[in-house]
This record gives sequence, structure tokens and C-alpha cells, in this order.
Amino acid sequence: MEISSIESPAFLKELDVEQLENLASEIRSFLIGQLSKTGGHLGSNLGVCELTIALHKIYNSPEDQLIWDIGHQTYVHKILTGRSSMFPFLRKKSGMSGFIHRGESVHDIWEAGHSSTSLSAALGHAIVRDNTGRSGHVIAIIGDGALTGGMAMEALNHLGDSGRKVTVVLNDNGMSISPNIGALKNFFADDDLHFRKTFFEKIGIHYLGPVNGHCISELIDCFQEAKLTDSPVFIHVRTEKGKGWLPAENDLLSKGHGVAPYDPYTGEPTTTDITLKDYSQTVADALLDIAETNFFTVITPAMIVGSRLVEFGDRYPDRLIDTGIAEQHAVTLAAGMANAGGKVFLPIYSTFLQRGYDQVVHDVCRQNLNVAFGIDRAGFSGADGDSHHGVFDIAFLRSLPNMILMMPSCEVECNMMTRFALEYSEGPIALRYPRGKVDDWLGVEPIKKLEIGKWQVLKNGTDAAIITFGPILRKAMNTAESLAECGLSIMVINARFIKPLDEALLESLFKQQIPILTLEESVLAGGFGSSVLEYAADHGYSGSIIRRLGLDDIFYGIGSDEELRTAAGLTENVIAEQCTRLVLEREHA
Amino acid sequence: MEISSIESPAFLKELDVEQLENLASEIRSFLIGQLSKTGGHLGSNLGVCELTIALHKIYNSPEDQLIWDIGHQTYVHKILTGRSSMFPFLRKKSGMSGFIHRGESVHDIWEAGHSSTSLSAALGHAIVRDNTGRSGHVIAIIGDGALTGGMAMEALNHLGDSGRKVTVVLNDNGMSISPNIGALKNFFADDDLHFRKTFFEKIGIHYLGPVNGHCISELIDCFQEAKLTDSPVFIHVRTEKGKGWLPAENDLLSKGHGVAPYDPYTGEPTTTDITLKDYSQTVADALLDIAETNFFTVITPAMIVGSRLVEFGDRYPDRLIDTGIAEQHAVTLAAGMANAGGKVFLPIYSTFLQRGYDQVVHDVCRQNLNVAFGIDRAGFSGADGDSHHGVFDIAFLRSLPNMILMMPSCEVECNMMTRFALEYSEGPIALRYPRGKVDDWLGVEPIKKLEIGKWQVLKNGTDAAIITFGPILRKAMNTAESLAECGLSIMVINARFIKPLDEALLESLFKQQIPILTLEESVLAGGFGSSVLEYAADHGYSGSIIRRLGLDDIFYGIGSDEELRTAAGLTENVIAEQCTRLVLEREHA
Repeated sequence: MEISSIESPAFLKELDVEQLENLASEIRSFLIGQLSKTGGHLGSNLGVCELTIALHKIYNSPEDQLIWDIGHQTYVHKILTGRSSMFPFLRKKSGMSGFIHRGESVHDIWEAGHSSTSLSAALGHAIVRDNTGRSGHVIAIIGDGALTGGMAMEALNHLGDSGRKVTVVLNDNGMSISPNIGALKNFFADDDLHFRKTFFEKIGIHYLGPVNGHCISELIDCFQEAKLTDSPVFIHVRTEKGKGWLPAENDLLSKGHGVAPYDPYTGEPTTTDITLKDYSQTVADALLDIAETNFFTVITPAMIVGSRLVEFGDRYPDRLIDTGIAEQHAVTLAAGMANAGGKVFLPIYSTFLQRGYDQVVHDVCRQNLNVAFGIDRAGFSGADGDSHHGVFDIAFLRSLPNMILMMPSCEVECNMMTRFALEYSEGPIALRYPRGKVDDWLGVEPIKKLEIGKWQVLKNGTDAAIITFGPILRKAMNTAESLAECGLSIMVINARFIKPLDEALLESLFKQQIPILTLEESVLAGGFGSSVLEYAADHGYSGSIIRRLGLDDIFYGIGSDEELRTAAGLTENVIAEQCTRLVLEREHA
Repeated sequence: MEISSIESPAFLKELDVEQLENLASEIRSFLIGQLSKTGGHLGSNLGVCELTIALHKIYNSPEDQLIWDIGHQTYVHKILTGRSSMFPFLRKKSGMSGFIHRGESVHDIWEAGHSSTSLSAALGHAIVRDNTGRSGHVIAIIGDGALTGGMAMEALNHLGDSGRKVTVVLNDNGMSISPNIGALKNFFADDDLHFRKTFFEKIGIHYLGPVNGHCISELIDCFQEAKLTDSPVFIHVRTEKGKGWLPAENDLLSKGHGVAPYDPYTGEPTTTDITLKDYSQTVADALLDIAETNFFTVITPAMIVGSRLVEFGDRYPDRLIDTGIAEQHAVTLAAGMANAGGKVFLPIYSTFLQRGYDQVVHDVCRQNLNVAFGIDRAGFSGADGDSHHGVFDIAFLRSLPNMILMMPSCEVECNMMTRFALEYSEGPIALRYPRGKVDDWLGVEPIKKLEIGKWQVLKNGTDAAIITFGPILRKAMNTAESLAECGLSIMVINARFIKPLDEALLESLFKQQIPILTLEESVLAGGFGSSVLEYAADHGYSGSIIRRLGLDDIFYGIGSDEELRTAAGLTENVIAEQCTRLVLEREHA
């Protein structure tokens, strides 16, 4: 069977175990070769080659519904459902998603970029199946890391009680990006099979396994047995992340998860740009530096690698707490430590902080606790697409009392803000920072000091003012400089504090009737620009001319960050056009 | 010991078991008598009389830190820490909180109105204790209902792994407001003690119990043993909600939770106003009505009583799913059902929806699934205070693509919106409705039909326009009528769709240069009023005069809803004043 000729999983029905095993190894080679060029989540997909083949062999997708928890483990599924030719376009604009995508295939049932949602979704599908008298199996495939996310445990508790026929396939590789955390891993690693079986029976779920996830015949037998069971079934499959690729097998932490292009033989990345570091690394370096003289604890929800905390953990193992995939707990743990007088820094991806939103409101802000958040991956998150774009956090955080919100525009500012957040002791504070490389400082004078709610005028001007923050400041400066050549005098303001606003500076702009353009790589609805509008309206500056550039009320898909910025109108051309319009508007006012 | 003379729990050290038992029964009588006048969470507190006494007998608060999960089970704790005289002012403005409140007592360590946070908080306290070399016990007291909330399971998983000395006291009464849900209840109800012990040992936690939670000597022995254990300890205490009060013992569902004043002998409420029904009941009645002809499922996270779903559940047991306290799972379960083609209505309190925020973003809105939300307790939630005021949902929902957001201002509209939400099939839709009684329809003509994003002009006017929604519309109408007597012509608009806006109507207001006042019982930062400002700015109506009334950037405490509205400036006087200002501003513009 040529990989490229696969159109649907139907052909698997005709293959015997040996042929399926051969297929697994062909798929493995295909993936190693393809992803070496495009990058992608190699390790997790190598781990599920046999598992995915066996699932499609025994179940009839899409009548039987495969619901994958976090879609990045579905490359094999994509191959078996006829998408091998799309791999050169993996995670590219107009290409193929790195996750499950319902628009791509009838075999893609449920989309997820965040973990731990599959059990709830599968139970929902099973209830509707039963209500409508349809038949068919519903199968959730979930990693052991994702299983410890609270909502998965909520769902398991409900599933056992419901008695519904749902098949849960636990892909137990002992990892949740970083090695797995928490007491339950011992429960699943334990040799006492009888005990585990009994536990599941007591909560109403039939336990099968453990099964060797790289042995197709074992998997097939197990799925056959599961099909005959009329209650919820839990199939415990043990796999190895990165299976069959030496570089990952030898160094799982750095090469097992992936996603940059790499040398297929050594696993070494082929595209790393070492000339500039990224924001996450800048924050991590600042933490390392501060830790030499100050005691504080870093809490991370399974993001030691992503948040560049490997070195911090090596140097200060007692000061780094990995909660595993458990954002709710991570936030309230930080709140508890702060309430007890401890100093905490919690780096967390913007969209994963959404999981801890109530904990931010109810535990941190309401009690005004001194937790410092590092909101990573703020702004577009390129190839990861809609589930990972960190574009809602300004809207959902700035409406919360007591919260201070900053964003750096360069390495120096990022370092200062990390220090500032750790020194601040009045309540919650967050710096949000993007994916991607740090920029150089744009100002003429060095930054001396941060003051709560104090912005900085980077460039003076009288015709209009651009107020923005973060890396996009560079575009504002470039545009202002270009427009200067056309005779327009544009002020550029670095609003490093997103909340609170620099009221004195705003007052002076409004009094001088300087029209304002706000720029943000964030949703416009309720965003930073709105807070400027609010200030103007609330303080009697109704006549002020204020325009906002940012993200529309849609979900943005996959693309390079620059492609996405272009889609959102965050380009120098559009900024220039808006500035010109503002100037004309003022003239005609 | 006179209850009124208790100043601190120190006196308990001198009492023997018999004296402690007498104290428990005195406290029980005190609570039954006091709460009959003020209302309050009687049942849960009767259930923890002996437990609380034993805790304060054995541990030394505040050096030993008692961290209560959901503070409404802390009335006995309040009595023992010297606050009995405050009970006449329970849950009143400037009185005593119904929850833990750090401002009230050094014995109040951690505040919580939402469930399942205590384990994370306790672990945080223990980490700081260990880091700083302090001594003292950290004890989390959590109900079995709260334990099934995902974040509590996340914390338990981490706790077992951490090996930290934290004592978890499970108050197992089989209830989470409604009878408890989920498979884990069987695990705790099971007689196989050895099995349960083994399970906890396997996840790194020492299990003690089950202990009779109404037997002080058993409790004391158990806490003594726990004090000597150096690993995490889990004490399984079995209690009866409403213990010692016949009305609750006989009818736990309706009299076991509380909170209105009642006859201390019969338990019947003494203040029920049966002349008008509330919004939750109106929604529930509409659901009952629609269910006669249409098939849909109602999902509730443990709020059968609060969401008035008892009758619905009796009549359609197969169409009502109680997930227990598991908001994340509830939202994604609804999303799963919608994805499978099912029709779902999910009533959920505004502040509890915060727990499911990521699920709303990532599962529902991003996949544009047709889930109908009923956001209950939207707006101030009076005596419950800051953790329960549903004032953030407009800000956190309106920034999400695909979401439709409505609010009814009267019974008829509430009924229509419930129907509309269930008929709508294009994606997520929510109606938010307040606590409290329904109002009559304010318009002259009957409401005929709802149209997405279509507002209604209730009263014409030319000097200014008030745009608002929900029950506060009544105040807008009253004010407009009063101002008419002073010769001001104020238009009143019912913005029943909070999102999307009625752009045609806004355009006409802007074109006529009619100044606008927006009113909302919701945070101003990023709220509805801001969306009107955004529209004006984005469509070139920079000169428009728009003012907003709503909640400032602070957490509002306890009070009657009207007291809280007064604090937020949502009164007819302030509305009138603002309208007059708008008119003057236009004259001077």
C-alpha cells in the first residue's frame, strides 16, 4: 500500500496483522521524513501509529465516532483518512491543520487544541446517539497527561454514573509534554492490575488492559472485546512517545514533542535562529537572575519546556512547581501561596489561562492576592491556529478589579517588567508577552524605571497619536517615520501598562485635541482601544477622534503571524492609512 | 457556656466530650432560632456542628490554618471565633458575611463562595509554611459535592505527589445542594474500607475513617491521629445535612440548603412572596411548556433547585442531566451534544459560568455549536456578596465571536427569549436573567417577535436616548416619564440583544445627534456601553455624546440588590441627572 494512495480507512479491513505492522512502519517513515521539512508534533504521532491503525481497523469511522483529545496526535488518522498529500502544507495558511479540523474530513468529529475535553464531548455524542436511537460506537482517545486535567476527571465521574456506552482509550505514555505529574501516574503505573480493575468497576466503568500500544494484534483483540461491552469501557494502552525514532527515544524531553523542522537522522533542529532569543526565554532569564538574590516560586502547568524553565528547574528544583495540565489548580495554588505570604510567578499561555479564569476572578482578584502572571503566547500563535491565539486575555482581564496588565515591546522592557511584577506587592499583576523573538528597544533614552500606569512617548508629534504596546510598537514607529517624510507629525506612545491607563497623558492628548489611533493584536471588542474610548466618554471628551485597529469579531485560523496580522489590518500600510484619515477627520471636524 | 460570651475557640481546650456535646446542641438551637429570622444556609451548618467543635478543640487556629471550601458551612466556626452577636446581621450590608471573610476575623484564612478551591489553597499554604520553616497544620474542609469539581481532583492529584503535610477533611453528606452526582459517590459510600485505604495510599495520601461526624469523641481521636501523620492525610467524615432539625431531616431537598427566613418548627418559609414568580421560574416554566412539543435536553451543574428544575426533572427525567458541581464538563458536554445534533439548554449561574469560560471559548464558540445558555443570577446577587455578583459575563462573553447575548426585562420577554434560544440553530446563544421577581411588560403594544440584534423603542424622545436592557429598563421608563414632566423628551430603548447591536437604530440616533445614556447592571469596563462607544468610534460618529452608567472597577460587597444598585449609581435620580447633563452637553456642543 502506497501511503499516497490511501483515500479512506476502508482498506484496513482487508489487511492482516503483518500487513498492518508494515503499514505502521511505512507511516512512521513518512512522518519522520515529512515533518523534518515542515515541523510538527512528531513524538506524539509516532507513539500512536499502531493504536490509530488498530482503531480504524476495528471501528467504522465516521459511523463510529473517534473523538481525539487534543488534535495534535492525529497525523496518523489524517493519513488513514486520505490526507497524506496535504503534509507539505501542514500547519500552513490554507493548508492542513495540525489538529482535528471538521472542515477537512468527515472523519474529523471534534476539534480540540486544548486538552481534556474529549470525555465530555464523547459522552455528549453518546447521549444524543441514545436519544435518537442511532447505533455506533463513540470512542474518546485521551493521553494520561490530559486525563489529570480537572474537566476530564469531572467527565469520568459522570460517565461512570451514566452507564452510557462510551469507550475511553487512555494513551498512557507517562508524558504531558513534560514527564507526567501527579499521584495518579502511580495508580496507572502500578502492577496491581486487579486493584485497578476493581477501582474502575466501583465507579461504574469496565477496565481493559493494560495493552501494549505498539502491538497491533493485542490492540485489535482489546477493541473487539470493548465492542461487546455494554457499559462504559476504559482501555488502558501503554505507548512510547517518539517510538521508532532514535533521536526522540534517546532525548524525549527536547526532541519528543517537536515542532520545528529537524534533521531526520539526528533530530537536531535545522532552522533555529540563535541570533535572537524569544520572549519566553527573556522572562526565564530574568527569573534566573532575580532568583540569585530573591526567593520566589515559579508554578507551571506542564509547560517547563514551552516556558523555557528547564534551566530554572535544574538550578532551583525546589522553587519550580509543575502542576501538570491543571490550570485551575495552578492559579489557585498560586493564590494560596500568595495568601500565605509567598511570592509566586505563574507563566501560563494566554489561551490556557482561560481554563483558570474563574480562579483569577474569584481567588486572585477578589481576594486581591499578590500573584504575578506571565501570560505567554499573547497575540497570534501562527501555525497552531484558532485554539491557541492569545487574543482574548485583555478583554477578560482588564474588566477585573485589582488587575494590573502590562506588555513589553522589547527585550529590555520584558526583563524590567518581569522584575517589576515580582517586586510589586499590592495585588495581582500580569505581563503578557508574545511568541516570537524579542526586539531591540525603540527609544532614544534607555528605560529607567516602570511606574504603574505610566506610558512613554517614544516620538513626539502633533497631528495624531498612535497608542500601542508590545512588538507592534515597531510598526507604529516605522509608520510614523514614513509619514514624517510626507510631512505628517505622528506621536508614538508606548502604552506599556494596558491597565491602568496613563490618565495624565490621555488628558493632555484630549485637551490638545490630538486624534488617536490605538493598535492591539487582540480582539477589539472590549479590548485596550475600548478602554481609551471609555476614558474619553467618561471624562467629557466626547468630541475626541479615536480609531482602533485590532482583531475583528471572528476566529482567526492558521497562518504565519505576519499573515494573520495582515488579515487583521495590523500592517504599516493600514496604520499609515488610518493615521492619514485621522488627520483629515480632524481638519474637517 | 453562653453562646453569646464566646470570644475565641480557646475555651474549648478546657471542655470534656460531654460538655462539647452540650455545646453542639446549644449551637444547633442558636442557629435554628437565629436563621429562622434572617435566613441563611442552615442545613449545611447543622451538619458540621460537632465537626467544627472538634476541629477547634484539637487544632489551634489561627496558627493551625482552617481552610473552608465554600464558606457557607462556617456559621459554627463564626460562633466559636466570637461572632455570635453578629448573627442578626448575617448576610446584610455592613453586617456579617455568609461566607468566610478575612476582614472579620484572624481565624478566617481563605475566602470562597465558589466550590472546590480549598485543596489548592491549602497546598499553597503548606508550601509556604515549609519554605519558611514555619510549623502548624493546614486543614482543608471540603464537601463531597465540591470534591468532584475538577480543580479539587487536580489538587488531590498534586497533593498526593507533593508529600506535603496537608489534612483534608471530607465532609461527606452525599449532597451537593441536590443529592450528589457521579460515580465517585459510590466509591465513598462503599463498605470496602480496605480498598479505599489502599487507593489513597497508592496516590500518596493516608486515609483515615470513615468517622461519624456527629460523634465528637470519634472526631477528636481521628484528628489526634492525623496530627501525628507526616504525609498528606484524608479524613473521611460522614455527616448528615440538616442534622438535628426535623424539617430538614424529613425534607432535605427543599429545606436542607436554606436560605429564606422560616418557621423554626415546621421549616416552612415565612416570607415567600407568591404574587410574582422569579426569572429562573419563568425560564423553567417556558422549558416545561416547550418540552411538550419539542425534544431537548437540559443540563444543570448541581442547580436543580436553584434553577427551578424540580418539576422539569419529575416530568422529564430523561431530559434533565445533572452533572454535579462540574461546570467545565457541563459546558463541554453541552457542546458535544450540540455537535452530535442534539438540542441543549444549559442554565448556569453567571459567576459559575466563569468556571466554564475556556469551554465556552474553545469548545462552543470556536466550533460555533448550537448551545443555548441560560445565564442565571446575572447582575447583583445581594446577600451572597462579591463571589456571586454576576457582573462580568457581558464583558467576557461579548468579546467572543459567534456568541449571541440577550437579556429580558419582563416575564413575557423572558419566556420569548427562552423559546428563541431553543429555536435558534446557528450557534451559541445566551439569555442572561437576574435573581428576583419578574416585572410586567413595559411596552404599549405586545411583543410580537424577537429578531436577532433588533431593539425596541419603548418610548420616543428627541432630547436624549436611554439604551438599556433587563429589569433596570423599568427605572429608565420611570425616569423618562418624570423628565417628561420637566419638559425633557427622553427616548427609551430596550436593547434586548446585548450582542449583536441594533446597528440601524444606532445609526439613526447618531445621525440625529441624539445623546445616549447606556445603563447596565454589569461592569463598565468592556461592557455593553463600551460596545456602543466602539460602534460610534468605528463608524465615524466621533462627535457623539455617549455616557455610561454601570459598575465601577471594584468588587461590590453584600447588600440588598437595591442598596448595591444605589452604590453603583443605578438609581432614578442618577439616571435623571445624567440625562439632564447629556441634554446640556449637546446644547453646548
